[in-house]
Amino acid sequence: MLKEAIYHRPKNQFAYACNDDMIHIQIQTKRNDINTIFLYYGDPFEFEGNKWRHSFIEMQKSGSDNLFDYWVVEIIPPQRRLRYAFHLKSNEQESFYTERGFSNTVHDDFSAYFCFPFHHPSDRFTAPSWVKDTVWYQIFPDRFANGNSQNDPSETLPWNSSDPTTTTIFGGDLEGVIQHLDYLVDLGISGIYFTPIFKARSNHKYDSIDYMEIDPQFGDKQTFKRLVSECHKHGIKVMLDAVFNHCGEEFPPFQDVLINGESSAYKDWFHFSSNQPEDEPLQYHTFAFEKSMPKLNTQNPEVKKYLIEVGQYWVSEFQIDGWRLDVANEIDHQFWREFRQAVKKVNKDVYLVGEVWHDAMPWLQGDQFDAVMNYPLANHLLRFFAYDAIGAEQFSLDLQAYLHQYQKTVQEAAFNLVGSHDTPRLLNLARMNKQKVKLLTAFQLSFTGSPSIYYGDELGLTGEQDPGCRKCMVWDKEEQDQEMLEFFKKLLNLRKSYPILANEGTFKVLEASNEHNYLCYSKENDKQLFLAVMNNHPTKQTLPLPLDLHDQTILDLWKMEEFSAHTTHVSVTLEPYDFTFLLINK
Amino acid sequence: MLKEAIYHRPKNQFAYACNDDMIHIQIQTKRNDINTIFLYYGDPFEFEGNKWRHSFIEMQKSGSDNLFDYWVVEIIPPQRRLRYAFHLKSNEQESFYTERGFSNTVHDDFSAYFCFPFHHPSDRFTAPSWVKDTVWYQIFPDRFANGNSQNDPSETLPWNSSDPTTTTIFGGDLEGVIQHLDYLVDLGISGIYFTPIFKARSNHKYDSIDYMEIDPQFGDKQTFKRLVSECHKHGIKVMLDAVFNHCGEEFPPFQDVLINGESSAYKDWFHFSSNQPEDEPLQYHTFAFEKSMPKLNTQNPEVKKYLIEVGQYWVSEFQIDGWRLDVANEIDHQFWREFRQAVKKVNKDVYLVGEVWHDAMPWLQGDQFDAVMNYPLANHLLRFFAYDAIGAEQFSLDLQAYLHQYQKTVQEAAFNLVGSHDTPRLLNLARMNKQKVKLLTAFQLSFTGSPSIYYGDELGLTGEQDPGCRKCMVWDKEEQDQEMLEFFKKLLNLRKSYPILANEGTFKVLEASNEHNYLCYSKENDKQLFLAVMNNHPTKQTLPLPLDLHDQTILDLWKMEEFSAHTTHVSVTLEPYDFTFLLINK
Repeated sequence: MLKEAIYHRPKNQFAYACNDDMIHIQIQTKRNDINTIFLYYGDPFEFEGNKWRHSFIEMQKSGSDNLFDYWVVEIIPPQRRLRYAFHLKSNEQESFYTERGFSNTVHDDFSAYFCFPFHHPSDRFTAPSWVKDTVWYQIFPDRFANGNSQNDPSETLPWNSSDPTTTTIFGGDLEGVIQHLDYLVDLGISGIYFTPIFKARSNHKYDSIDYMEIDPQFGDKQTFKRLVSECHKHGIKVMLDAVFNHCGEEFPPFQDVLINGESSAYKDWFHFSSNQPEDEPLQYHTFAFEKSMPKLNTQNPEVKKYLIEVGQYWVSEFQIDGWRLDVANEIDHQFWREFRQAVKKVNKDVYLVGEVWHDAMPWLQGDQFDAVMNYPLANHLLRFFAYDAIGAEQFSLDLQAYLHQYQKTVQEAAFNLVGSHDTPRLLNLARMNKQKVKLLTAFQLSFTGSPSIYYGDELGLTGEQDPGCRKCMVWDKEEQDQEMLEFFKKLLNLRKSYPILANEGTFKVLEASNEHNYLCYSKENDKQLFLAVMNNHPTKQTLPLPLDLHDQTILDLWKMEEFSAHTTHVSVTLEPYDFTFLLINK
Repeated sequence: MLKEAIYHRPKNQFAYACNDDMIHIQIQTKRNDINTIFLYYGDPFEFEGNKWRHSFIEMQKSGSDNLFDYWVVEIIPPQRRLRYAFHLKSNEQESFYTERGFSNTVHDDFSAYFCFPFHHPSDRFTAPSWVKDTVWYQIFPDRFANGNSQNDPSETLPWNSSDPTTTTIFGGDLEGVIQHLDYLVDLGISGIYFTPIFKARSNHKYDSIDYMEIDPQFGDKQTFKRLVSECHKHGIKVMLDAVFNHCGEEFPPFQDVLINGESSAYKDWFHFSSNQPEDEPLQYHTFAFEKSMPKLNTQNPEVKKYLIEVGQYWVSEFQIDGWRLDVANEIDHQFWREFRQAVKKVNKDVYLVGEVWHDAMPWLQGDQFDAVMNYPLANHLLRFFAYDAIGAEQFSLDLQAYLHQYQKTVQEAAFNLVGSHDTPRLLNLARMNKQKVKLLTAFQLSFTGSPSIYYGDELGLTGEQDPGCRKCMVWDKEEQDQEMLEFFKKLLNLRKSYPILANEGTFKVLEASNEHNYLCYSKENDKQLFLAVMNNHPTKQTLPLPLDLHDQTILDLWKMEEFSAHTTHVSVTLEPYDFTFLLINK
């Protein structure tokens, strides 16, 4: 038994409440090392005579990655309190694991056991319930549609007249979105995430000048109100982008400091150096090394108050449904805790998504964000489907690692983008292979979480790293990739009609083979079994279904017809990079 | 190389800011497996041309326990941002470890590196600085001294006339503490922790009836004010005990519910069952299964407001210096976050100590407590010094595990008690071996953290598990263990005179041997080296000092004379369970 590989430490993903009553316990062990694990558990205060009253229950192996097996069990402690320990057995050894380490026999001093002292709903990670039924559509406002030429800045270029540069303006605006709402409804998305729309200088608007005003080139507050109202009528949520880590250099408080120096009332709104050399340019913390984006001091109570008011204002006055929080990882946790409390007071169902590209556990414990931009998951998908950097087996292991890295509740609300305004276009990442884009998207839209589509990916828009990935949306039907568009529509419609594709089932990889580079996974709940088979291989292949399905009525969801399984070997024949979706009612 | 043993995940003790500028990075590897670790690090946004600019620095092995080696390094990132990864080398292999796992060569995609996005002081764990120079004295008010017989309840027994039961009252009070302040000053303690003094029914007062009133049997607010003022005059801090997890059944809001049932305005102040069976006793959550201690609903904003006012009131009106927070682990984290913010607003230097007996990482991240009751450390000390359950070698390993379980900053402010009103007396735990009590105390008072002495331990008070451990303090000099008392005084005086014994040095075990059951440890800083040798063995032994000390001037701190080291073998001869303290000025 490899004790060094065994890890459990409350709380994070190892011990958390997954609903009103239930505590989820997880432990990691070396891969293929342990045969069984029993959880010994009880209430910390319950005795029979002098003896602590406890039960035990077998844990289930829920997955494995390259190095580890993961085991889980769920417990409902009647008094909401739990003490527990692990009894592990391998072929040659057994061991009892408590907070104090390992012992050879069952530890009789339960004060050494791990503790989940009390389950309070106020501490539980809880994202708005609507999120897990939502598919997002990310819009970069200058590039989606120009609905009102009156608000075009003088330097506006004709729509799609050139490839975008870091400074080009194409005149996209809010009116354009309203005018194309039927397109989005028809596509089947249920949420729009707008990159910033507040007053700013650049075309991307990540250099805010006024957090309380819509940038005039996008429209005005009336238009935005109408936009939100129209979206809501069609069941579409609206999420805005808040850039609180830094502002643009034209932000009036920063200008005030430039003018009034030491005597400015806004001096402590930023991070100026305390050792400013006299004859040198002003030293202050910035976003990256971008002097035109001074970092805001979010520890300053005045700044905090101002930004929290911004957060509340757009929710209370415009009924927006979410905030995507730019460079969220570089702002202090304490700010985000207060921000969450304040904004959720206005509307507890607002979705808070932090921009954190890396492991985000410290932000996903219930007190800060509901989700982060899930680039680590995107990376797994891209490496398998787009780059061919890994085979199906490694992809399956990476997924297992991902699934055991955060709480289940976090995964259901995760903001699962693949590309964005900050990455090359999906089609480019897939080296222009449309079939690969489709296969990846079929996976993305049948996986847990809240997926996001970057505007135009659904009709074959291309582009390299920004500014290339920020091309104008194509509205000329002849130039749209209609086949791709129909594919996205069909997929979105399926996810809506069959919630088991979304978050109403437990995900499991059933088979992953490098030889055939194919993947078979399932989603399962009490009533249904959903099966997906993906042929991520350049040849047509007949692939076995790793379940005994004969004598079952199987619906081919993609063809919408009964799936005829051979009675002996159940298999499916797939074109290169094709997939099938099957549904079995129990 | 055993990859399964390697663990690092920000933040917790693995990546944290230890002062205004410095980030501390820690990693765990299998014991004796890795030869060197280099940290690759840089600013996430700093490039030379297209290449990410980074440095590397060797990590130091800072300790080992049974299973793991621990490695640390400290970095000052000029822009307060850090990306980093680990380059590990064993005899036969090298490996590069990032957030995405292991690779055989240096990973060139730094977006896979671990991230410490920005160091904000608002997120740093920061306890009041005075705490690390404080030695606490815990007083159970009914049992310390009766200074005013006027406030004695009618059932008061003559002082020390019998062994305590769960209900006996002996008349101890605040006036008694004031009258014996000279004793405490002479003893040399610098903080008093009082178990509850608010109005309650029991003798221990953990069943609060009124959080805004002193229990009449202890005195009144004037007396308490005088007590705090007298303490402060002598440089003694005062910490009170707040019982917020539950109240006593006589707490008026609970009585209101008993009387008015469903219509009571206080119904949601508690956790009543939503499925109350009609003809059965009222069901509600309690402390343990104690129906007379109903659990307060700290998620209810009204309850929160009330308790936070309590927390602020005694700080602002009476200038208390700390709150010990009873059953803190069973109250929601969200409550403690708001409590901390509110109380620290009144006085940022208030010390907040949670009662958490188990691993307390989730409470010690800077947003909740400054310390917890450090029973896990007490357990290590007791097992070695008092119970003889482990030998010196295991004790040394346990200490290493403890030292790498929390941030260094947490350890310096830790509330390091050995016994309390909730455990048998130290002397009883040491099976009445006074030498062992002394040896353990010598360790406790030369270790990091903020040690606490339970009243009477310093003069040989005995008693088993409560109520036995709550005997009356002995004021008759003839009945006091004068030798023990002198020992404590000497030790406290040394810790005060030589801050290297407290928190002004880095602790290290130099030698631990089971054969001789002896331990040699050091504290070291730029100017001094402190050496302790402890003979935890029933025989007189001559023990080697594992450092080359000849030609050095060594002060024997205990004898206050020059220590004569033999020039060849430097050793020290110690009686059974005796120790020596040596100081070398560099």
